[in-house]
Amino acid sequence: MQQQVSVITLGVGDLASSRRFYCEGFGWSPVFENAEIVFYQMNGFVLGTWLESALAADSGRAAIHRPGAHALAHNVPARADVQPAMDRLLRAGGRLLKAPAEPAHGGFAGYVADPDDHAWEIAWNPRWSIAPDGRVTFGT
Amino acid sequence: MQQQVSVITLGVGDLASSRRFYCEGFGWSPVFENAEIVFYQMNGFVLGTWLESALAADSGRAAIHRPGAHALAHNVPARADVQPAMDRLLRAGGRLLKAPAEPAHGGFAGYVADPDDHAWEIAWNPRWSIAPDGRVTFGT
Repeated sequence: MQQQVSVITLGVGDLASSRRFYCEGFGWSPVFENAEIVFYQMNGFVLGTWLESALAADSGRAAIHRPGAHALAHNVPARADVQPAMDRLLRAGGRLLKAPAEPAHGGFAGYVADPDDHAWEIAWNPRWSIAPDGRVTFGT
Repeated sequence: MQQQVSVITLGVGDLASSRRFYCEGFGWSPVFENAEIVFYQMNGFVLGTWLESALAADSGRAAIHRPGAHALAHNVPARADVQPAMDRLLRAGGRLLKAPAEPAHGGFAGYVADPDDHAWEIAWNPRWSIAPDGRVTFGT
C-alpha cells in the first residue's frame, strides 16, 4: 500500500476552543467546518478535529481517552522560532507541558497541549528539511 | 505559522509487533529505526512509533492512555481496495474495530486497531484526491 496517511483526526470536547487554538494559535485556516468537525488541509494530508463522541462511535469504540499515547509535532525553521510559537499557542488556549530544551537527539523543542490535551511538540530540528509547501523530510 | 505537521508519533508497547503491522500489514519501509523508535517517511511528514514510556517522558507527562482520542486514516483508490487492505492489516497483528460500511458522508470505510490499539480507518473517499506521490487533498 502507498506509504500514506490521509487524515489525522483528534477527538475534541468543545469545538470552539479547539478551533481558536488552531486558527489563532497556529494561524491555520479551515478548509471545511460544520457543527461537529473542523478540517484543515495540511502538508499532504488532512487534519480533522471532531467531537470525541462522534469519533468514538465512528470507530466502533465505547470509550477513548485523553491524553492519548500520541503526539504531533510542528517543526519551525529556526531555534529562535520555538519560544514565540509556543507563546502564541499558550495565548490561544494551550497549556504548557514542557518548556523548550535541547533533547538528546539534538535541536530545540518544547510541548504544548491543545485545549483537549493533545500534545503538540514545537521543534527546531536542523537535520530535517521543511519545503516551502510544508513537506517535511526525515534526515539524520 | 506554516499549515504543517512534521511528525505524528504513536506510543508503542512492543516495537516488534508494531513494526510487523506497519511493514507487513501496510507494506511500508522504515527510514530509520533503533531499539526504541521506528520512523517512516510519509506523504509530507514523518510517522514515528516510539516506546510509550519514552514518549510520555519526552512530552512531560506522567501517564498517557490507549486507546487515545484520535484516529488515523489511510485512503485507498477504490472501494474494492478497502476489504483486502483491512484483511492484510488483520493478518499482520491488527484487530478489527468496525467492518467496512457506507458512512453517512459517503464512501466506504472500516476501522482496524494496530497492536497498540491505535485506530486506523481504511477508507475509500471518492471526493478526496490522492496524488501519485501520496498527497491527499480535501474535497467536497
